[in-house]
Amino acid sequence: MPAQSAQSVQPAQSVQPAQSPVTVLGLGLMGTALASALLKAGHPTTVWNRTASKTGPLAAQGATPADTARDAITASPLTIVCLTTNKDVRALLAPEAESLAGRTVVNLTNGTPAQARELAAWAADHGITYIDGGIMAVPQMIATPGAYILYSGTDEAAFATHRPTLQALADTKWVGKDPGLAALYDLSLLTGMYGMTMGVAQAYALIGSEGIPAGEFAPLLRDWVAAMTDAIVPETAAAVDTGQHLTDVSNLAMNREAFTNFLQAYAEQGLRTELFEPLQGLLDRAVEEGHGADGLSRLVTLLKQS
Amino acid sequence: MPAQSAQSVQPAQSVQPAQSPVTVLGLGLMGTALASALLKAGHPTTVWNRTASKTGPLAAQGATPADTARDAITASPLTIVCLTTNKDVRALLAPEAESLAGRTVVNLTNGTPAQARELAAWAADHGITYIDGGIMAVPQMIATPGAYILYSGTDEAAFATHRPTLQALADTKWVGKDPGLAALYDLSLLTGMYGMTMGVAQAYALIGSEGIPAGEFAPLLRDWVAAMTDAIVPETAAAVDTGQHLTDVSNLAMNREAFTNFLQAYAEQGLRTELFEPLQGLLDRAVEEGHGADGLSRLVTLLKQS
Ligand SMILES: NC(=O)c1ccc[n+]([C@@H]2O[C@H](COP(=O)([O-])OP(=O)(O)OC[C@H]3O[C@@H](n4cnc5c(N)ncnc54)[C@H](OP(=O)(O)O)[C@@H]3O)[C@@H](O)[C@H]2O)c1
Ligand SMILES: NC(=O)c1ccc[n+]([C@@H]2O[C@H](COP(=O)([O-])OP(=O)(O)OC[C@H]3O[C@@H](n4cnc5c(N)ncnc54)[C@H](OP(=O)(O)O)[C@@H]3O)[C@@H](O)[C@H]2O)c1
Repeated sequence: MPAQSAQSVQPAQSVQPAQSPVTVLGLGLMGTALASALLKAGHPTTVWNRTASKTGPLAAQGATPADTARDAITASPLTIVCLTTNKDVRALLAPEAESLAGRTVVNLTNGTPAQARELAAWAADHGITYIDGGIMAVPQMIATPGAYILYSGTDEAAFATHRPTLQALADTKWVGKDPGLAALYDLSLLTGMYGMTMGVAQAYALIGSEGIPAGEFAPLLRDWVAAMTDAIVPETAAAVDTGQHLTDVSNLAMNREAFTNFLQAYAEQGLRTELFEPLQGLLDRAVEEGHGADGLSRLVTLLKQS
Repeated sequence: MPAQSAQSVQPAQSVQPAQSPVTVLGLGLMGTALASALLKAGHPTTVWNRTASKTGPLAAQGATPADTARDAITASPLTIVCLTTNKDVRALLAPEAESLAGRTVVNLTNGTPAQARELAAWAADHGITYIDGGIMAVPQMIATPGAYILYSGTDEAAFATHRPTLQALADTKWVGKDPGLAALYDLSLLTGMYGMTMGVAQAYALIGSEGIPAGEFAPLLRDWVAAMTDAIVPETAAAVDTGQHLTDVSNLAMNREAFTNFLQAYAEQGLRTELFEPLQGLLDRAVEEGHGADGLSRLVTLLKQS
């Protein structure tokens, strides 16, 4: 009885299972943030980087630096890789197929769906479990609320096994068994962001052409773009999924007409028009092809190669 | 005492002053919504449209149709005009300078700052008070919460006089005494929206290339673009206003590298790349000109004609 009672007052962490070991290959800005998050969550973390000096700060946080990628890979059942491009990933992993056999690779390097499928096929040929991922965060946001990582791969059970570990990096979103899907979702979301960024950059250039401080304009711009995003994103989805693009709100013929003012104003105000000329071209084509009464959602279908 | 007490129970509307008379020229989708809002707010409203039949529904709501623009103008101290372009406004108002003298014109037609200044100069030459406006709403949003109209003009006192009337259309935002400013703000806000729209259209085209329903992707896309807007709009403003574009989060060199994946993925997935090619060009130029360590805010300065 005294023994039992002593047990019941032990601190909670001492009864938690030991965290599973993980290896991180590539310690750039992102890889360093990932390894650091794993260490903070208590995972025995082995790290390797081409430029060895980058392991220093992580070793100080408790990571085990490995001399070679092979040593790092064989230290853990799970290897997370985050390099500049998938070409770099291919170059690094190709000679390590034997060491990786029977283990899981989670590739968080940005790439295209086709590249992810190619790596997945190579991994399958060598008995390696491959999960592709897309990080929806900058390094500073790793392991903070709101950040998430998209995952896809043929072996959903392997993902389920490693999910508790991956949760240490950011919230996990499984998007399907086609290994290309994480990259597809990632690129699609970032495409939305890049479009918004083009709009914001041109908007600040335009308002700045009359010497108005950007900070004065910022609250109006943020509220307006946020409100339009809230309206346009679901409206466009409904139109795309039903094929019903007709609108009584803001049609392509009116937008095409109005848009000539924009390019003219950019030029009058001493700005370059390059980022928005293709939109004028697309609006022109939409109207010429008979879609003048449709809403902006019609542009989605016109972006397919014909 | 009984008289006083009787007065105090009179319904509120009977003690309100009579609403001031207003004229609306141009009864397209927007002009009709504007006239309708004025009628609902109790303003005696005179309406005119080039195609006379469009006055019918408004007459049924209590508007007074005028046979000519001149008759309409002389019926009220305030004329609101909303035609397709400022060229149309110029053509309509030029012969009416004498009738307009001593009255106020509020022009809610979309145009450029230069066009607004030209109309303001013409008005000043003829003793007409000119206020330019930019409507931040679609017709369906007129007189609903969230909608607003930007105004600017040399005579701020005239704006103050008519503000109670204009409030019937939408919330009013005065942006300054330069008549071009309302158009500048309007075009800048809509530029932000058009950029976001390009991003959303390309994003749906990309996710749709693998048969994923847009509606399934919409919540992720909305949340992501909204979160990025919240972060990027104020960050960019701070960088532009201080001239400090260096970043440790997401620099142009990395974005340039990453962006090649995007154009490649669009092409691999059977999509057109035209909307985003200029961004690649701009990122290339930014890095070539030595701005690789700067954030995306640097693009604002690169959009000026050199
Ligand atoms: N930073 C972000 O905001 C962010 C956000 C989401 C996704 N991502 C993605 O995460 C990945 C890494 O980004 P990052 O910001 O960490 O980039 P980074 O700071 O430039 O780091 C790149 C890393 O890749 C390594 N590397 C490059 N080529 C290699 C090769 N051939 N063999 C071995 N190692 C190689 C580098 O090693 P050395 O140190 O030896 O050069 C370095 O560790 C990229 O795909 C990026 O798109 C980044
Ligand atoms: N609709 C929107 O969502 C929206 C939002 C914000 C701002 N705006 C701006 O509001 C303005 C009007 O838009 P709208 O949607 O009402 O367009 P609309 O439905 O196409 O109506 C255009 C109006 O202009 C009149 N008009 C055109 N040329 C004329 C001329 N030379 N002389 C006399 N009247 C002429 C037309 O008369 P007829 O009937 O005789 O053709 C019609 O009343 C545009 O500048 C637009 O950019 C519209």
